[in-house]
Amino acid sequence: MDKSQLIHPGERLDDLYRNGYHIIQNPEAFCFGIDAVLLSDFARVKAGETAVDLGTGNGVVPILLEAKNNGSKYYGLEIQKEIAKMADRSVQYNGQQEKVSIVNGDIKEASRIFGRSKVDVVTTNPPYMICDHGIQNPADTKAIARHEVLCNLEDILRESSQMLKQKGRFYMIHRPFRLAEIFCKMVEHRIEPKRLRLVHPYADKEPTMVLIEGMKDAKSNLTIEKPLVVYEKPGVYTQEIYRIYGDDWDGGKK
Amino acid sequence: MDKSQLIHPGERLDDLYRNGYHIIQNPEAFCFGIDAVLLSDFARVKAGETAVDLGTGNGVVPILLEAKNNGSKYYGLEIQKEIAKMADRSVQYNGQQEKVSIVNGDIKEASRIFGRSKVDVVTTNPPYMICDHGIQNPADTKAIARHEVLCNLEDILRESSQMLKQKGRFYMIHRPFRLAEIFCKMVEHRIEPKRLRLVHPYADKEPTMVLIEGMKDAKSNLTIEKPLVVYEKPGVYTQEIYRIYGDDWDGGKK
Repeated sequence: MDKSQLIHPGERLDDLYRNGYHIIQNPEAFCFGIDAVLLSDFARVKAGETAVDLGTGNGVVPILLEAKNNGSKYYGLEIQKEIAKMADRSVQYNGQQEKVSIVNGDIKEASRIFGRSKVDVVTTNPPYMICDHGIQNPADTKAIARHEVLCNLEDILRESSQMLKQKGRFYMIHRPFRLAEIFCKMVEHRIEPKRLRLVHPYADKEPTMVLIEGMKDAKSNLTIEKPLVVYEKPGVYTQEIYRIYGDDWDGGKK
Repeated sequence: MDKSQLIHPGERLDDLYRNGYHIIQNPEAFCFGIDAVLLSDFARVKAGETAVDLGTGNGVVPILLEAKNNGSKYYGLEIQKEIAKMADRSVQYNGQQEKVSIVNGDIKEASRIFGRSKVDVVTTNPPYMICDHGIQNPADTKAIARHEVLCNLEDILRESSQMLKQKGRFYMIHRPFRLAEIFCKMVEHRIEPKRLRLVHPYADKEPTMVLIEGMKDAKSNLTIEKPLVVYEKPGVYTQEIYRIYGDDWDGGKK
């Protein structure tokens, strides 16, 4: 098979610098950002475990999780049919079909799709912004990825809690301004916050992202880790960012 | 009056490096730590406002708040009678009687003592540890300061919420491991987390303390500030710690 046929007009192929994997992206829709890469490094999937990524977009999280972990099965759930198909073509491009499956479906029905208490790990890089009723076009792919148009935190935590096994893990990247709300909703849905890491653009600047690990029905005891710093100085990434992106990473140059 | 009579046997007098203020401490009981100093710098009391410090110990927080702010009245509530008297002697030593009052009483009755919706600012550096039933002597002054023997988070937040005016501010220093519980209890008691600052011993280490500002009946929107770092390198404090302690601070040498 000629793999280049998997890439459709208007799409591009990006190197993931892991296992020779690539990802198909459509710049007109939405390209993955540092959030997804940090989330897939923060999350851990152990041998034999099943992981579900909620709102997977182009599938970057399950693709990278499979590259970095020894889980047995990785699912990505995506509501937008064309985006789900594109993610599936990336899985085929990389030959990951045995371990990675893209499912076209709604987060609000995730526990019906994947079953109750069946999943070891849930990951999600959800829309950060509370739905703004001023959004012009709610079918806009970028708006759906950024604003809570089709699902909100409540939906994500309710469904995650129902899907997760006892002591199953929940990993999310989000924005600092919603951290209190996130923690309260997690606890409400019996996903106890266990680990928090703040992502700072520079060591002496406010964090711009929060990485959170929760555990279903665990006891309350949070570890806040050392800061994750993106830039050593302007234009120069930290060693940790290079470790996360892969040693051969070109620094995002295009 | 001979001010030295205010210092009793077994006590010592420490310089606070602010307005010429000092504090009387009893090393057998409990001496204030960096926590109290950071809290009194993190908290803001505006002109005309009334502030209450819950569990004030030797009174270091209201004494420093008065030194650094333009509020009209600062109260310190302390349940242990001898400690409250000692705090009161420090207030006298500094000539702060017009603005600072130490009250001997129980945090669990704070809203009865100070009234409902009467207070602009609450500060607290509470016991960090969940009460351990193995504590040998629950009357032990150090145990009371460190463990939730006489009051717990629930008591502090319930009473603070009742005392605070609408949009009144709540400032607390605590440990990272309880942050999720703290946020949930704050929200439950209508004190919305608005500002969070993590205190790290070194820039690349896990935080050991959390500084939290909440606001009564505010909307949900948290700002996480840049890290507060204590040491530049071993034995060398950061510039910010010197600013907080006062420019003439001797670095805690005794």
